[in-house]
Amino acid sequence: MSKRAVVLLSGGLDSATVLAIANHQKYTCHALSFHYGQRHDGEIVCAQKVAKHLGAASHVVTTIDLSAWGGSALTADIDVPKDGCSDGIPVTYVPARNTIFLSHALGYAEAIGALNIFIGVNAVDYSGYPDCRREFIESFEKTANLATKVGVEGSRIRIHTPLIDMTKIEIIKSGLGLGVDYSMTQSCYDPQNGMPCKQCDACRIRDAAFAEIE
Amino acid sequence: MSKRAVVLLSGGLDSATVLAIANHQKYTCHALSFHYGQRHDGEIVCAQKVAKHLGAASHVVTTIDLSAWGGSALTADIDVPKDGCSDGIPVTYVPARNTIFLSHALGYAEAIGALNIFIGVNAVDYSGYPDCRREFIESFEKTANLATKVGVEGSRIRIHTPLIDMTKIEIIKSGLGLGVDYSMTQSCYDPQNGMPCKQCDACRIRDAAFAEIE
Repeated sequence: MSKRAVVLLSGGLDSATVLAIANHQKYTCHALSFHYGQRHDGEIVCAQKVAKHLGAASHVVTTIDLSAWGGSALTADIDVPKDGCSDGIPVTYVPARNTIFLSHALGYAEAIGALNIFIGVNAVDYSGYPDCRREFIESFEKTANLATKVGVEGSRIRIHTPLIDMTKIEIIKSGLGLGVDYSMTQSCYDPQNGMPCKQCDACRIRDAAFAEIE
Repeated sequence: MSKRAVVLLSGGLDSATVLAIANHQKYTCHALSFHYGQRHDGEIVCAQKVAKHLGAASHVVTTIDLSAWGGSALTADIDVPKDGCSDGIPVTYVPARNTIFLSHALGYAEAIGALNIFIGVNAVDYSGYPDCRREFIESFEKTANLATKVGVEGSRIRIHTPLIDMTKIEIIKSGLGLGVDYSMTQSCYDPQNGMPCKQCDACRIRDAAFAEIE
């Protein structure tokens, strides 16, 4: 069985931890990042640093344009909320983003003969995003095996979600144990001059977790 | 219920027919096409003509780069077969292409409040492509409804495949009845100076169907 894997790498805390975990599980990791029309491209620079730091076998950065239709505070002219986490699906939800990312990862995986895809979804701290839930991932995995030559011919593509049931604190502790340098990562939805805003949901969750660990 | 629809439009015969059918079913049609790193971009020009001719409400052409990893005769330096249709999955299969196209259509649909996506897959003449089969489409539809805010909140996204059980002849007759001008469409996998090669699978199937109709 091939031990190649495609690892979705955003430049944030979660996906850096996933790359470290996939490495630790002896996968040869091919990282994949997206310019997708997000507000800030600084996260791609972070992804490049993380891929190098953690020794990814390769790193493809590809461009798609989700701002062509918008529909999210991350891809359109909608303010990022800064008054604390709220109930329901936040406006930072990007329509079908994880489906789009996973489908590209699937094409890449099939083209290089990889049967494994890693994604840093997490249902604990971001329960508002429908495409971070286990039901979605399991359904995508089934679809992936029906969609592809490799799936139809009898191999099985797997979507790995090592963080899905972890708290943010558990994620960070796991990554620190595997040598992740979190100073290279960026979580903020709306950085100002490259610095985290410290007010959006992503900053709040990240900062609260680090404060508890220290 | 919203009657907006996103229609995947390639510039080929099948998707032009699908757009005509969706129009006929009274959907307001938002066409979506891709520069995806294919050998020939002439099909985008065809898609633009067809969208205008059939009165699409809008037409987004977006760019993705499936040639970043290749794996197909359509996106990499692999010869397009010209010695007749053969058994099995042909080398013109592009890894996960329909999953990638549908996932973009899903994001677009959700962003504009459309619950309907049309795609011109056809299981009769192209049975070699795994992502043209009903099992795949049904699985993608389930995934779509788990992936999105609109699906989780109780609406139902539908993937429409009006051509799936039709022969090429039936498709063409249907389109002619709805006023499709097939001279605007292009099916060839490997056009030479903008002209169809007349030898690839797509040309052979198209030409045989038109010959039988005339």
